[in-house]
Amino acid sequence: MRAVAVPDVGGIVMSQTRELLDTVAVSFRPQVSTERLAAAIDAMGACEEAVTACAAAMVGEDDVRVLQNAIVRDLNCADVVAATRRVLSRGSDAALLSAQLEACVLACEHSAELCARHAHHHEHCRMCSQATLRCAEACRQVLHGLHG
Amino acid sequence: MRAVAVPDVGGIVMSQTRELLDTVAVSFRPQVSTERLAAAIDAMGACEEAVTACAAAMVGEDDVRVLQNAIVRDLNCADVVAATRRVLSRGSDAALLSAQLEACVLACEHSAELCARHAHHHEHCRMCSQATLRCAEACRQVLHGLHG
Amino acid sequence: MRAVAVPDVGGIVMSQTRELLDTVAVSFRPQVSTERLAAAIDAMGACEEAVTACAAAMVGEDDVRVLQNAIVRDLNCADVVAATRRVLSRGSDAALLSAQLEACVLACEHSAELCARHAHHHEHCRMCSQATLRCAEACRQVLHGLHG
Amino acid sequence: MRAVAVPDVGGIVMSQTRELLDTVAVSFRPQVSTERLAAAIDAMGACEEAVTACAAAMVGEDDVRVLQNAIVRDLNCADVVAATRRVLSRGSDAALLSAQLEACVLACEHSAELCARHAHHHEHCRMCSQATLRCAEACRQVLHGLHG
Repeated sequence: MRAVAVPDVGGIVMSQTRELLDTVAVSFRPQVSTERLAAAIDAMGACEEAVTACAAAMVGEDDVRVLQNAIVRDLNCADVVAATRRVLSRGSDAALLSAQLEACVLACEHSAELCARHAHHHEHCRMCSQATLRCAEACRQVLHGLHG
Repeated sequence: MRAVAVPDVGGIVMSQTRELLDTVAVSFRPQVSTERLAAAIDAMGACEEAVTACAAAMVGEDDVRVLQNAIVRDLNCADVVAATRRVLSRGSDAALLSAQLEACVLACEHSAELCARHAHHHEHCRMCSQATLRCAEACRQVLHGLHG
Repeated sequence: MRAVAVPDVGGIVMSQTRELLDTVAVSFRPQVSTERLAAAIDAMGACEEAVTACAAAMVGEDDVRVLQNAIVRDLNCADVVAATRRVLSRGSDAALLSAQLEACVLACEHSAELCARHAHHHEHCRMCSQATLRCAEACRQVLHGLHG
Repeated sequence: MRAVAVPDVGGIVMSQTRELLDTVAVSFRPQVSTERLAAAIDAMGACEEAVTACAAAMVGEDDVRVLQNAIVRDLNCADVVAATRRVLSRGSDAALLSAQLEACVLACEHSAELCARHAHHHEHCRMCSQATLRCAEACRQVLHGLHG
């Protein structure tokens, strides 16, 4: 039942981002395709969610003392990703978007670097490091388009 | 090709939220099911995206003067939804979550009320009012669970 | 030298908020005076700063395990206060502002409650609990005006 | 009465940021002095406030059609500045802070560029362009310290 329900609801979410972008004027096109922009927005949303939940979960773990740096990196990542997603969603100022995407890639990579070390014993760290790496890659795809 | 790709990518996004919540301690359970919490998180993410993009698009429209109040409501909605999503994602303090969800329902309804008036001539307003109404409903579902 | 410099620079900051509010249309007036609104905005800014810095500092403390709940409450407080400040700064929708202020008072009080317990051995917790209590009081002052 | 009250209250706000930084571990010191970091944090807070209030005020102006680009730049600026302030306040990851400060300078300059054009007929645009330029300068001061 879950296997059936998930793609269905997920499909609505995903198609919304792409369809939404089709309805607004985005000055990053045609350099960067709507598909790529929508994929970046969705990856950023999933990333912000993962680092926010993972940071709070790490704070509550028994071994929180070895997670201290990872927590702060997750918190930084959440804020940088959120700001980047908003700039991207507003569809103008490619120079600012580019600078913000550079910072976002760094924030994601720094977060992933530490969370990955705890992935084997904390499932939320494993999922979080995957989400941040996916987000970094999606940001790089948009950067390539902007600078291509 | 699009019809095939969308549920696939969307399914990953959706399942991530639910799986992510399974990996963290959330004190709102078992009052509120993981499915309901994940659905609210996803609806909030989609809502924040829609109101952010719609507000920027309205600012750029030729008839921006009739959209003035709708723009401010969208901007308020984006910030309130974002804060609510983070509180929910951290999984503790049901009293704060409850108060924040009440504000979130209001922000979504106020945004939807004005955007719906422009839905027939601005596609982004139509999509935005749908996203805010879905978000309000998802928030109410969590509220019912918390207070039930 | 420091005693001289502080009021000078601080005066510019403070007067800016009040002067800024004088230049924009704020529908919460005359129910709530510009002084009270400006005081709330400044208290929120100081509060968001204090809880953000304090949360990161607590994460890095040797006794982080006894600070776990306080950290999450600070993180929640930062996001709720930030959203409330933006809604207030936009100057419209008193009903939403009211609901958001209620949540903000709760977020500040919950944060202060736990940080105050650690105020005697962590200076940042002492300053943070003061900032959150001042913010809660400033929010209540605006709420009284709105409902008066 | 106002001339007396302003430095007093403002002094408390200002001294709080500096004193707060004295209580937390900040890895950007001694490269960047506490005074410089506190000045940047305060300039960012004032900037976020100014662009948020100015954007909402511009949306409500009769000549909103000539302000369209300025509004979006203010909105972008608010989000970028807010994220940068949080990264700075957490006191670690100089590489990320540096990238985020670069984006922040750009966001402030782009906002100031357009708001300055409307400074002669909109008082909030005049104050906003001053706040963004001050913020850009404060960010550059921190950047110089980090790279010096």
